[in-house]
Amino acid sequence: MTSAHQAVTAYWAAIEARDWEALAGLVSGNVFYDVPQTRERVQGGEAFVRFCAEGFPGDWHITVERAVGQGQHAASWVRWRPAGDDTQSGLSFFDFGDDGRITRITDFWPEPYEPPANRARLVERY
Amino acid sequence: MTSAHQAVTAYWAAIEARDWEALAGLVSGNVFYDVPQTRERVQGGEAFVRFCAEGFPGDWHITVERAVGQGQHAASWVRWRPAGDDTQSGLSFFDFGDDGRITRITDFWPEPYEPPANRARLVERY
Repeated sequence: MTSAHQAVTAYWAAIEARDWEALAGLVSGNVFYDVPQTRERVQGGEAFVRFCAEGFPGDWHITVERAVGQGQHAASWVRWRPAGDDTQSGLSFFDFGDDGRITRITDFWPEPYEPPANRARLVERY
Repeated sequence: MTSAHQAVTAYWAAIEARDWEALAGLVSGNVFYDVPQTRERVQGGEAFVRFCAEGFPGDWHITVERAVGQGQHAASWVRWRPAGDDTQSGLSFFDFGDDGRITRITDFWPEPYEPPANRARLVERY
């Protein structure tokens, strides 16, 4: 049986390789994909693979910074590098079904922001 | 020995309870705290506990949505609820030392954004 950690590593390897057949094999037929920041949802394995295959044109690359799996849950932190642009961090939380396929993905893509002044004395900036 | 999952649960329980002594017991003396979005850093256990205790005034609450631990790594997704405001998601990645204390915390606090129009046909909005 594939561990949650292995499944997440395989998930990002499939996306990096644009191997949509491999990606389809990792997600449940009724996978639920959610981006809370944009209130976007995709329901179903076919729709999700199409979203990945068609929603992000360009010569980007993904590298995995952390992947953590435990039982039927996992999380990852990746760096997304579009051609010529700055890298962006992506944070993803995964739930798995009994068959080891991904049933739910919640994705976050945070942007830079200016921190509140009241905590400036408590931190260093870099 | 405390598992990474238990340590993360205890970390958020200490913060929710404003139990700074308990929090100090969970982090390494040379813990490194990093917020990539703001390029803020805090180095050392004492400075980190002071940052938590003094940096976030107000009557907020934290609930843990997911906590995943594996070996010397863990991740969590929490909801932060300031009094009267909308909730915000916080994503945290943790590394642990051999003594089970947290040595590194990387925090992300994503904000809402408008998704690119080119993928509108591939998603639902809610």
